Amino acid sequence: MSTTFLNASIITIGDELLIGQVVDTNSAWIAQELNKMGVWVRRRVAVGDNKEDIVRALDEESQEASIIIMTGGLGPTADDITKPLLCEYFGGKMVMDEKVLAHVKHLFESIFKRPAGMLLERNIKQAEVPDVCTVLHNARGTAPGMWFEKNGKVYVSLPGVPHEMKGLMLDAVLPKLQQVFEMPAIVSKTLVTYGLGESMLAERIKDFEESLPGIVKLAYLPNHGLVRLRLTAKGNDKQVLESVVTELHTQLKEQLQDVLVTDTDASLENVVANLLLKQGKTMGTAESCTGGYIAQLITAQRGSSAYYKGSVISYANEVKQHVLNVAPVTIEQNGAVSEATVKEMVAGGLQALGCDYVVATSGIMGPDGGTAEKPIGTVWVGVGNKYKIEAALFQFRFDRRRNIDTTAMNALNLLRKFIASNEEKIG
Amino acid sequence: MSTTFLNASIITIGDELLIGQVVDTNSAWIAQELNKMGVWVRRRVAVGDNKEDIVRALDEESQEASIIIMTGGLGPTADDITKPLLCEYFGGKMVMDEKVLAHVKHLFESIFKRPAGMLLERNIKQAEVPDVCTVLHNARGTAPGMWFEKNGKVYVSLPGVPHEMKGLMLDAVLPKLQQVFEMPAIVSKTLVTYGLGESMLAERIKDFEESLPGIVKLAYLPNHGLVRLRLTAKGNDKQVLESVVTELHTQLKEQLQDVLVTDTDASLENVVANLLLKQGKTMGTAESCTGGYIAQLITAQRGSSAYYKGSVISYANEVKQHVLNVAPVTIEQNGAVSEATVKEMVAGGLQALGCDYVVATSGIMGPDGGTAEKPIGTVWVGVGNKYKIEAALFQFRFDRRRNIDTTAMNALNLLRKFIASNEEKIG
Repeated sequence: MSTTFLNASIITIGDELLIGQVVDTNSAWIAQELNKMGVWVRRRVAVGDNKEDIVRALDEESQEASIIIMTGGLGPTADDITKPLLCEYFGGKMVMDEKVLAHVKHLFESIFKRPAGMLLERNIKQAEVPDVCTVLHNARGTAPGMWFEKNGKVYVSLPGVPHEMKGLMLDAVLPKLQQVFEMPAIVSKTLVTYGLGESMLAERIKDFEESLPGIVKLAYLPNHGLVRLRLTAKGNDKQVLESVVTELHTQLKEQLQDVLVTDTDASLENVVANLLLKQGKTMGTAESCTGGYIAQLITAQRGSSAYYKGSVISYANEVKQHVLNVAPVTIEQNGAVSEATVKEMVAGGLQALGCDYVVATSGIMGPDGGTAEKPIGTVWVGVGNKYKIEAALFQFRFDRRRNIDTTAMNALNLLRKFIASNEEKIG
Repeated sequence: MSTTFLNASIITIGDELLIGQVVDTNSAWIAQELNKMGVWVRRRVAVGDNKEDIVRALDEESQEASIIIMTGGLGPTADDITKPLLCEYFGGKMVMDEKVLAHVKHLFESIFKRPAGMLLERNIKQAEVPDVCTVLHNARGTAPGMWFEKNGKVYVSLPGVPHEMKGLMLDAVLPKLQQVFEMPAIVSKTLVTYGLGESMLAERIKDFEESLPGIVKLAYLPNHGLVRLRLTAKGNDKQVLESVVTELHTQLKEQLQDVLVTDTDASLENVVANLLLKQGKTMGTAESCTGGYIAQLITAQRGSSAYYKGSVISYANEVKQHVLNVAPVTIEQNGAVSEATVKEMVAGGLQALGCDYVVATSGIMGPDGGTAEKPIGTVWVGVGNKYKIEAALFQFRFDRRRNIDTTAMNALNLLRKFIASNEEKIG
């Protein structure tokens, strides 16, 4: 590891994180962004709205990190601990920032549609800042970001609301960090596999992994049947790193050809989207047990209307029959969780939605509804186009949430393979 | 705050957390469970797969916490750092645990459907444990949990896979903690509001908040337009706490009657579910811009098939026309994002899905597709039954992900109000 490598620490402030009511998604996002520019997040710490604990965290995280990013503790109902505390910690005094105040008033009038005269004392207080910080403009909210410097280290305080924090990081913090510090180079390349567990995969590429140069790290990131493999090199010469990582990535790809989903960092939704866009084809879903989870994964992608037509979520058998045209006798003879039903759901989906490909799911997610013959975790997935319909049986063994997630990933992967094989035949 | 209150720290181990590829959902879950039994999580720390950093975290977290829960760093591909490190830290030596080995072999044969002869060295190694720990049986996976005690403090090491970690916590760790420590009492009650921002709400209940006794804390947990308010009391006498919190909760409820969604800790999906179950009615969704997100929120609840029939996700206008029976002229004259369209989507949904209530969405989620007349964030939500259909216009201003989430919460809230008002009329 290069010694010039910059260390960062993330401190998240707020009781809501410690009582577990909120999942911290900010830290992962910040870590990704810092990583991209070659800053290594060495530690992440969460503390409550408590003066003693915040000061302790600041002291401890300053020991080895050059960059300390704090999020949270700045909202209008926060106990007003963090801002005065930072002011004291960095030896300043609180002053009213007229630009921030004008912005708070503007937000009140234009966005919240309330007259500025309705501004509360606690809103006005958000425009007070320590005179020893650089104020970072928060276009998306009322709490400004704050940038402090001390003993060659940078401390940034940001609101905890994710979209406000992200805006401030992209607009102000990341560019400013690149001005202040000389950044080392970091290069990473990812590939995604399906069908081999983490340990089988590790065994397959044991020799490859053992022969990796010291500047390169390999990370395994398993996710519902898929394993994402990420090669990361850190050093000073970006060009050297690029060529080292590219060569290793190619080697790895060749060794894993048979289980490869994509040689990029794309999500499975994205791989499917790219295949559809390339073919100029459209898709839809006919979901029973996944209840719309696959549809929302697809439509969470920007621009998905170019290749996604719609879905029929047929939880009730009547919906399978009336909207997807599944024959009552099919369900009677085989049950709703069966190869025959899921295939008719694909056929009906193609018809109802007028799209080129449909993927369908029917299964028992738990915790209720399992039988001896079809225990919880039994899932049929169907996929097809107007020429061919296929189906596959899965047997999972987890809880409801995990069964839904895993079914969705497997369904998308079947769809991916079906679309890709179709492309080969055309080509 | 009571001085007998137990402090805990959570240490999550793994480079994947520091590069931001994985969002840490474990910590929030662990914090919730510990809170319920009166243990306060004072800090959460994430460190990489690095000996020095793990030891530092163990030393630091031992300072103020009596309970240290570690997750991660135990997988078959982990660099084998954590387990030997813990062994050394607690002064033991590694031994093969025959019971764990038998369990690993059993999982291989019965679940992974591979002969035990195929066990890899790295799998067998998972059965090695420090002889100074109590082994916690992991029914769901191959990495056992480990329980250490030192200087009156408890250290627990658990695998990072969420469902394995949860199983171990519920089956072994929580019951064992209750045996080892005398737990203080903790009582909390929640209510959920809609329609007032965090700061307006704080202003409304300022006097209430200022008069709270020292043993009671009030937390604001905003979430896409809803604000969850949580009263938590900690002390020694559970009965006293119960009566204090119940009384305060009643006061708060009265003050916020007009903006109250529920006086329990239930999610909006759950509130809707309970209303439907009480009326013996069913629902469905007709979603355009939310793309199935509402449907999957509903169907993520166990037992949802009792009140949920299905959905039509009509991203394309043809699907709106063919499946939901929206008149082409309606879309031509008003656009797909309009009151008229969303009302016809409700009517068509009621027809196609054969359910009692339908909620429909149509909007522009961004980042593409906005116009001067209908900018990004413009959303129409419709809700109705066979007697009446209503619609409401929203104007959000966030990014795609946030627009989808916020639309879903507002749509569910409209549905909740519609169902509740229907009940009043019947009653």
